[in-house]
Amino acid sequence: MNILFVGDVVGAPGRKMVKEYLPKLKSHFRPHLTIVNGENSAGGRGITEEIYKQLLEAGANVVTLGNHAWDNKNIFEFIDRAKYMVRPANFPQAPGTGIAYVRINDVEAAVINLQGRTFMTPLECPFQKAEELVFEAKNRTDIIFVDFHAEATSEKQAMGWFLDGKVTAVIGTHTHVQTADNRILPGGTAYLSDVGMTGPYDGILGMEKDAVIYRFITGLPARFEVPNSGRKQLSACIIQINKNSGKATSIERILINDDTPFFAG
Amino acid sequence: MNILFVGDVVGAPGRKMVKEYLPKLKSHFRPHLTIVNGENSAGGRGITEEIYKQLLEAGANVVTLGNHAWDNKNIFEFIDRAKYMVRPANFPQAPGTGIAYVRINDVEAAVINLQGRTFMTPLECPFQKAEELVFEAKNRTDIIFVDFHAEATSEKQAMGWFLDGKVTAVIGTHTHVQTADNRILPGGTAYLSDVGMTGPYDGILGMEKDAVIYRFITGLPARFEVPNSGRKQLSACIIQINKNSGKATSIERILINDDTPFFAG
Amino acid sequence: MNILFVGDVVGAPGRKMVKEYLPKLKSHFRPHLTIVNGENSAGGRGITEEIYKQLLEAGANVVTLGNHAWDNKNIFEFIDRAKYMVRPANFPQAPGTGIAYVRINDVEAAVINLQGRTFMTPLECPFQKAEELVFEAKNRTDIIFVDFHAEATSEKQAMGWFLDGKVTAVIGTHTHVQTADNRILPGGTAYLSDVGMTGPYDGILGMEKDAVIYRFITGLPARFEVPNSGRKQLSACIIQINKNSGKATSIERILINDDTPFFAG
Amino acid sequence: MNILFVGDVVGAPGRKMVKEYLPKLKSHFRPHLTIVNGENSAGGRGITEEIYKQLLEAGANVVTLGNHAWDNKNIFEFIDRAKYMVRPANFPQAPGTGIAYVRINDVEAAVINLQGRTFMTPLECPFQKAEELVFEAKNRTDIIFVDFHAEATSEKQAMGWFLDGKVTAVIGTHTHVQTADNRILPGGTAYLSDVGMTGPYDGILGMEKDAVIYRFITGLPARFEVPNSGRKQLSACIIQINKNSGKATSIERILINDDTPFFAG
Ligand SMILES: [Fe+2]
Ligand SMILES: [Fe+2]
Ligand SMILES: [Fe+2]
Ligand SMILES: [Fe+2]
Ligand SMILES: [Fe+2]
Ligand SMILES: [Fe+2]
Ligand SMILES: [Fe+2]
Ligand SMILES: [Fe+2]
Repeated sequence: MNILFVGDVVGAPGRKMVKEYLPKLKSHFRPHLTIVNGENSAGGRGITEEIYKQLLEAGANVVTLGNHAWDNKNIFEFIDRAKYMVRPANFPQAPGTGIAYVRINDVEAAVINLQGRTFMTPLECPFQKAEELVFEAKNRTDIIFVDFHAEATSEKQAMGWFLDGKVTAVIGTHTHVQTADNRILPGGTAYLSDVGMTGPYDGILGMEKDAVIYRFITGLPARFEVPNSGRKQLSACIIQINKNSGKATSIERILINDDTPFFAG
Repeated sequence: MNILFVGDVVGAPGRKMVKEYLPKLKSHFRPHLTIVNGENSAGGRGITEEIYKQLLEAGANVVTLGNHAWDNKNIFEFIDRAKYMVRPANFPQAPGTGIAYVRINDVEAAVINLQGRTFMTPLECPFQKAEELVFEAKNRTDIIFVDFHAEATSEKQAMGWFLDGKVTAVIGTHTHVQTADNRILPGGTAYLSDVGMTGPYDGILGMEKDAVIYRFITGLPARFEVPNSGRKQLSACIIQINKNSGKATSIERILINDDTPFFAG
Repeated sequence: MNILFVGDVVGAPGRKMVKEYLPKLKSHFRPHLTIVNGENSAGGRGITEEIYKQLLEAGANVVTLGNHAWDNKNIFEFIDRAKYMVRPANFPQAPGTGIAYVRINDVEAAVINLQGRTFMTPLECPFQKAEELVFEAKNRTDIIFVDFHAEATSEKQAMGWFLDGKVTAVIGTHTHVQTADNRILPGGTAYLSDVGMTGPYDGILGMEKDAVIYRFITGLPARFEVPNSGRKQLSACIIQINKNSGKATSIERILINDDTPFFAG
Repeated sequence: MNILFVGDVVGAPGRKMVKEYLPKLKSHFRPHLTIVNGENSAGGRGITEEIYKQLLEAGANVVTLGNHAWDNKNIFEFIDRAKYMVRPANFPQAPGTGIAYVRINDVEAAVINLQGRTFMTPLECPFQKAEELVFEAKNRTDIIFVDFHAEATSEKQAMGWFLDGKVTAVIGTHTHVQTADNRILPGGTAYLSDVGMTGPYDGILGMEKDAVIYRFITGLPARFEVPNSGRKQLSACIIQINKNSGKATSIERILINDDTPFFAG
């Protein structure tokens, strides 16, 4: 049994990559569960109901979010009926849910979204919240996937080790750059500090690069836009798991771009 | 012609990996220039003259540093005579240098160290300083290597694009996690957001993991120590360059650990 | 009935000012409850049992703390028997207590210590924790004093308005600079963004100024020390309250230094 | 000779207070130079040309700014012709100026605006920039006023001591809360960590308080608006100076609000 996870989909270029490659990835890897982080799917900022539905239609079973969840105000209108969308569980008072359960044939899986606090907004403790949710989920299933949306590598690794042996996978999102540290921790948890971003290949974190460079150099405000043309990439990972124990047995990174194109042999 | 770069060496375990694998890597890849980031080489905090010399003896031509450069006070005693050690060039008033030149047979190469500002101490603008130093170096050589010691992926990618076509390579350090985004940018600059860390394999950024987790959970102070036993890793990259133009033609990541051991066939 | 609150006592100079002026202030204002923030009382960093006892002997009924509470490791040895010392209540797992009760003749008062999160370490939500503790305290008394140890004026004012009408006073500490915004909020809560610091008058936040300036200019590490000679100051405030309702009726600032010496007429 | 400085004017309520009380203050104190910080004068965010002109008409000789300078895009259209408006001088590449000279009868005065970096955007070093600008200004005048727009009390005090004896006054802005530490430093420089804000009296930093509290409690985005009704305040200070030496001889704080109304006897 395996899980496919696609990292932060950024704007139209990101959605285009999902539409084009998710079917190919699914046909190649035959994942039992497909999860897509959609926190930047609407123009780089947030998500809309229409896009949420598009992501499900494109093949996602669950959509995860992050600090940008609330950027597009449309979310407040549909989050409560979006059964397969999870926002960071450690927002203390927010609509929606931080854990979702999906049926996969005869088994069930839990998908949890948590947000880090280092260099980010203060929220409830993600470690304590993780413990609570894992305890809750364990009543129903041992297949527990955690999207830990965080900035600092220290906090991400800490979460990996903290949950090692208790969950199936701890996969980071938010930095928009895939890390190369995919591994199975000693307790059987698949870990990757960041799965990376799905969207423009020649921007900065998916945004048009000139504006970002201008802001770093001048300190002046600049409007960041997702470029609507140019090369694109998709970042993902595939996790093999033991269906009975919920433990991971392997985790591989997937990067699709002009330099490393996708070939389904 | 090629350049080997080894990421943040952490304490005794990191130095041990350098001593064991740097000769093997050199014999396998035959790099013309070997650079090692040593900001954590003395017990995880700074560097000493003895360790600086050990790194050179182990095969490094230049040692780069970062925000931890000043943690071990011994540096103030030897930095001015450490000809092949560079500290971040954008410290406004500091001993030592931010650029070093090395002869490689008949050519010369420049090695620059810069530090980011996002989520870090305010220093001089690394972009402006980069421009100045690259302008200076261009008088002597087109082979210019930049170790950009920074936290935020946005600032790192911005530096990569900012220097694309002007330098041979922009390689990030500091997060202690290797990223998978090695590529040759359109202008011929090798780029990697972070080369990763050399040291303990089962800690958090090279530190004993229980103390770090304790601090995240409690908010209380905890003493972080480099574990003196356990599994180890080495993180590096190898960059092929055109000797005449100084442009990079390829960049590959190197990760040596128990899960991905090194075999020099 | 009134409450005297003395702001962050810094090192030996601060303790000297407490020893010299607290008796005079008490004889002049005749407070029913005297509270002293002691987070910097041991050499600028933390507190020891000996100093805690000295502060009580000098006239304090309760000692409050802040982010520096844990700097002197001695605290872990005596905090559990220090009945009249409160550390920030929103540390999620820490020894000691965040609320203390004191008898004043026939009535009781509660003293709460909370820490902000903006520009500070992530802790539990101080607003939620405030609500819980105030709910608890209300079972015993309407006289509730809150030392809100925080950096950002926005978070401090937010706490003031949040607790207005529910507690006797919300007084800020931590910035070491007394603010001039003492007022009675519409609901009857005395408010002051920061009561200020007790210690050296010619340093920076109580530390020797040259080292601090050096660090700002160079970005290099510098050892901050409390100067052991030179002019000194004491910062405090006095709050008049209605003993029956627990509401505040006035709040006045007290600043004792060479420019504004203390005269008890 | 004296200088009147009015702190951060926030939106319509702030402008109303300026219009009503600035003439009264001028008629009472007869300042030779009047400076107003206008970084929040347009709806709390930035400034427009129309408002800039209104502030001058209301009695300001110079308008200073801060981190919010660029919030209203209109500034980019008029800043280059706004001869009496200064934006933080340590923006590395920005239109406008960070120093302005004004004639006061037979003498000239320099007004400098600088921005801090602690807990704020990285800019050029404000200390180094201060040194440069003071050196430049000294060629023309000894009357030099510095509006240091910064968050941290440590950085503000450091600037005060750094410029002590070199300038007439270092007055802080940005926190929107007046501090009580007005003093003449040993070298003859008037110092105040923050002059405070001019605008709503019952909000949080001038913004409608419920939205700010909601954001602190929930971590969710909230639109901050300047309330368009309710009580108002004005925060300012008046500095007496020796016209020949440029040294300050006294500094007094001014707070006008319902609790401390203004009476010009
Ligand atoms: Fe994202
Ligand atoms: Fe994010
Ligand atoms: Fe490092
Ligand atoms: Fe570092
Ligand atoms: Fe303090
Ligand atoms: Fe503090
Ligand atoms: Fe302001
Ligand atoms: Fe500001």
